[in-house]
Amino acid sequence: MDFTVTLKHHVARVETGLDRHLPAAGTRPARLHAAMRYSLQAGGKRLRPVLVLATAEVCGGMADAALPAAMAIECLHTYSLIHDDLPCMDNDDLRRGRPTVHRQFDEATALLAGDALLTHAFALLAENYPDKLAAALVRELADAAGSRRLIGGQMEDLLAEKKTDTTTEELEFIHLNKTAAMIEAALVMGGLIGGANEGSIAALRRAGRHLGLAFQIIDDILDATADTATLGKTAGKDAKAGKATFVRLHGLEKSRQLAEEHSTAALTALASLPGDAGFLKALVESMSRRVS
Amino acid sequence: MDFTVTLKHHVARVETGLDRHLPAAGTRPARLHAAMRYSLQAGGKRLRPVLVLATAEVCGGMADAALPAAMAIECLHTYSLIHDDLPCMDNDDLRRGRPTVHRQFDEATALLAGDALLTHAFALLAENYPDKLAAALVRELADAAGSRRLIGGQMEDLLAEKKTDTTTEELEFIHLNKTAAMIEAALVMGGLIGGANEGSIAALRRAGRHLGLAFQIIDDILDATADTATLGKTAGKDAKAGKATFVRLHGLEKSRQLAEEHSTAALTALASLPGDAGFLKALVESMSRRVS
Repeated sequence: MDFTVTLKHHVARVETGLDRHLPAAGTRPARLHAAMRYSLQAGGKRLRPVLVLATAEVCGGMADAALPAAMAIECLHTYSLIHDDLPCMDNDDLRRGRPTVHRQFDEATALLAGDALLTHAFALLAENYPDKLAAALVRELADAAGSRRLIGGQMEDLLAEKKTDTTTEELEFIHLNKTAAMIEAALVMGGLIGGANEGSIAALRRAGRHLGLAFQIIDDILDATADTATLGKTAGKDAKAGKATFVRLHGLEKSRQLAEEHSTAALTALASLPGDAGFLKALVESMSRRVS
Repeated sequence: MDFTVTLKHHVARVETGLDRHLPAAGTRPARLHAAMRYSLQAGGKRLRPVLVLATAEVCGGMADAALPAAMAIECLHTYSLIHDDLPCMDNDDLRRGRPTVHRQFDEATALLAGDALLTHAFALLAENYPDKLAAALVRELADAAGSRRLIGGQMEDLLAEKKTDTTTEELEFIHLNKTAAMIEAALVMGGLIGGANEGSIAALRRAGRHLGLAFQIIDDILDATADTATLGKTAGKDAKAGKATFVRLHGLEKSRQLAEEHSTAALTALASLPGDAGFLKALVESMSRRVS
C-alpha cells in the first residue's frame, strides 16, 4: 500500500484509540479528565504510537492488537510534554499551536494530568495483554521512561541549560535518553507484541536508538530554521534559552550530515528484520527529507 | 511475637530494602537520584510498606517476597507527597521535619524525582515477580494510583479548597481516594503475594478502605490538635488553608467516633481472614489509640 495512505490509516487508528482507551470525558473528577483529553487530543504527528502499530505488523502481529500499547506510549509521551512545559521546567505557553495544559487549565491540574497519564500508560499495558506479554511491556516502558533514561535525560537537559560548556558526550546522553529512549521503546514494544525473536528485538532497539537521535537532530535543525507557525510551538526557543543543541555544537551543515548518518543506520537495522519493513523505512526517509 | 518488636523488624526491612531497590546513589544523573533518595529516606512511619509485608505473611507468604512490592508502594506514596508539596499544590516547606524536596533541591528536580519514583514503582513490580503476579500487582497499583482514585482524590481536594460548602459526600470521595486507595492497595498487594483467595482479597479491600478512612480522620484530628514538632510537618495547616476536614465538618467529638467506627470495621474485616491477623489488628489499634 502507498506510504501516505498507510500512515493516514495508522494515525486514524491512534485518534480513535485515544478516545476509547481513556476514561470517559465526564468521569469524576471532570476537570482532571478534561485536561488529560485536552493534551492527548491536541493532534501531533503521533510518531511513537504509529511506530508501535507498524512495528507490530512488520513482526507478524496485527496493528489492532498493538493499539493499547500504542496508546500507552502516547500517554507517556504526552505526560512528559505536559511536565516539560510547566513553569519550573521549560515554561512554554504554546504546544502544537494551542495553549499548553497549565495555560489552558492551571499548574496543579497540569501536574496531576501528567501524573495521571503516566499512571494510565501502565494500566493500559497491564489490563490489555496476556500476563507474560504485559509484564514484558511494563518492564520495557518503565525502563525507557525511568530515572536513568527519559527522566534522566530531562534532568541532564535542565542542568545543561545552566552551563555554557556542554560537551558532545553530554548532549548525546541527553538526546539518547530524552528522545531516543521512547522511540526505542515504541519499536521494541511493537516487536514484543508482534512476537519478534531476540535478534529482531535487538535490531529494533538499534533502529530506535538511531531513529531517535536522527529525530532529535532534525528537531534541533527545525528549531533553528523554521518559524513558530510551521512548528506549532515557539521557534528559536532553544537557541534563546542558550540550550545546547546539535546545531549549536556542530553547526547546520554537520547536523544535517549527522541526521543523515543516523537515519541510514536506522534503515540498515530495519532491513535486517525478516518481515516487510517497507512502511517503517518510508517513515524514516520521510523524516529525513524534512531537513535535507 | 510482641507487636512493637515485629513492627520494628518490618520497618527495618523496609529501610534496608529502600537502599537495595533504588538505583545506586551515584547513578547518572546524580542530582536526580540524590533527590529520590532524600525523599524516600526521610523516615516516616512506613505504614503502607509495613502493611504489604505484614499482609503477605498473614496470607501465608514470606515478608521477604513482599519487599519489592512494599518498596513500590512506598515509592508511589513518596512521589505523591513530593508533588503534593510543590508550590502549585500545597506549597509546603516542611515534611517529616525536613525541608521538602523542592526546598532542598529545586522545583524542577522535585517534579522529576516524583515522576521517577512513580515510574520506578511499576518497574519494581514488573522486574521482581513472576509474570502473572507482576501483571496483577501492576493492575492493582495503577488502578489505585490512577485518575479515578489517588490522583482523582488530589484533584477534588484542590477543588474543594476553593469553596466553603464542601459536603460530607465530597470529603469522603477525597479521602477514599486520596488516602484509602493506597492503603487498600497495600493490603491487596500483600494478599496477592501471599496467595490469598478471592474472599480474602475482598476482605482485605474492605479492611483497607476502612483503615484508610480511619487513618485520614486521625490525621485530621492530629492536624487540629497537635503541634508542628510532634507532627514533623506544619500543624494547623489544613484549618488555615480553609480545607474541608472531618474535624471542620463534624467537630472533634464526632470525628473521634467516626475514626473508632472505621477502625472497628477494619478489625472485623481482618478477623475474617483465615491466617493470624494479630499483628495487623494490633497495628490498627495502635493507630486508633493516638487520638482516643
